[in-house]
Amino acid sequence: MKQITSRDNAQYKELKQLATSAQARRKAGRTLLDGVHLCVTWLELRGLPEQCIVSESGLRHPEVVAIVAKLEARHAHCLQLPDALYEALSQVEHGVGVMFLVATPEKAVPQALHTGAVLLDNVQDPGNVGSILRSAAAAGIREVYCSPGTAFCWSPKVLRAAMGAHFVLDIYENADLAALLRNAPIATLATSGYAKETLYDVDLKRPVAWVFGHEGQGVSEELLAMARHRVVIPHLGKVESLNVAACAAVCFFEQVRQNQSRSK
Amino acid sequence: MKQITSRDNAQYKELKQLATSAQARRKAGRTLLDGVHLCVTWLELRGLPEQCIVSESGLRHPEVVAIVAKLEARHAHCLQLPDALYEALSQVEHGVGVMFLVATPEKAVPQALHTGAVLLDNVQDPGNVGSILRSAAAAGIREVYCSPGTAFCWSPKVLRAAMGAHFVLDIYENADLAALLRNAPIATLATSGYAKETLYDVDLKRPVAWVFGHEGQGVSEELLAMARHRVVIPHLGKVESLNVAACAAVCFFEQVRQNQSRSK
Repeated sequence: MKQITSRDNAQYKELKQLATSAQARRKAGRTLLDGVHLCVTWLELRGLPEQCIVSESGLRHPEVVAIVAKLEARHAHCLQLPDALYEALSQVEHGVGVMFLVATPEKAVPQALHTGAVLLDNVQDPGNVGSILRSAAAAGIREVYCSPGTAFCWSPKVLRAAMGAHFVLDIYENADLAALLRNAPIATLATSGYAKETLYDVDLKRPVAWVFGHEGQGVSEELLAMARHRVVIPHLGKVESLNVAACAAVCFFEQVRQNQSRSK
Repeated sequence: MKQITSRDNAQYKELKQLATSAQARRKAGRTLLDGVHLCVTWLELRGLPEQCIVSESGLRHPEVVAIVAKLEARHAHCLQLPDALYEALSQVEHGVGVMFLVATPEKAVPQALHTGAVLLDNVQDPGNVGSILRSAAAAGIREVYCSPGTAFCWSPKVLRAAMGAHFVLDIYENADLAALLRNAPIATLATSGYAKETLYDVDLKRPVAWVFGHEGQGVSEELLAMARHRVVIPHLGKVESLNVAACAAVCFFEQVRQNQSRSK
């Protein structure tokens, strides 16, 4: 296994940049998957990484040893770092010291929505974006489209919150949501506290594109007007609204429920 | 309005402690509500604060001026701080500079569960706890019981994520969840990926106590065994599980849906 021991090593400096700068990750088309769960899930669903990076003390963990053994058997690149150098790359506290360098999956944005999808309009919080991706994947949704203002999906925080959902989804960033909604051949639904129709009134036994918006302002007026249905989740309490990720989970699993219910 | 300009002022030092130490907040039975939304909601639902603290530049914001005017008309205590001193108390980035000092509402833990409730077993992440409180309040649930290992509900992060839900809920911390479940006269439900019954199979048109667990390990085996129902939320994708706050939202609003559906 290759070792780097100096902070001044050019390859290490590149990794450091990827670890700390969203701009660097976008430009390089690469990202880091930090922690055992993300690495194992990537291996299972997407194959080999460009490189596996382990810390010296990580090599004392059986889970890390198993990953490295599997990779070396397939001649993948592994790199060992002293703990101090590794920790400067990692955002996982008390992690066990393994990460993958991978090419960020990229595909051209389809011309039109054609299957179950989520459209994120300016969702700011990485934890919310990650939770929405995770719920979407669990509900069998396949595509995610993000407006330019939405948190970058391949950032460490979004990756951590989504727990591997990225690897079963097609994620399109910087998408023109208005163009997608304008031409949508499938049902489009946006949630709004002011809608008259409730979520439970709509037939969800068909492909749906869901639109969710900014944590404070919700879905923009423009997109809200373009959605075929505007729906409200009925509330009982005095509290005015749900967290956007909670709202998305309720919507996705109402669709799962309708699809699984025998009659109706 | 009273002013403090020195960091060495005894009252300021007390506020600083409350702002930075969970232990200090617990010991004093007081907490800080940071930002316009929390302050306005407190005023509306719970009345006057012990003290209102504003920053010098906060006093240029009409929303803050309105709050201070309302409080001074009712002879509540207001305190003005230079921006630098205020910012050392605040965790809200780009906030407008208003917070309330309030006594943490405390009530004796009831002997038994008697109405819709949420039991949190070792839920670690303050954002998750806050989101669960917010969803619970929106779904009309009234009581929340937290195990000793669950994140402290009156911390700034939980308060921010819950958006005022704290003020319509009765929150019991350090509760003995096993004792509550053992004696429960109402239906108790815990979610588990291994359950045979689905969420949609259970009659939720009655008071339910929901149990949610640790982000990684879920509900402890002991509590899981004590719940009357163990339910799974059916998943369609390859992703193994939902975020605990997303899971709670799905459960609470399935109950809302069942309660609002006319027939069945």
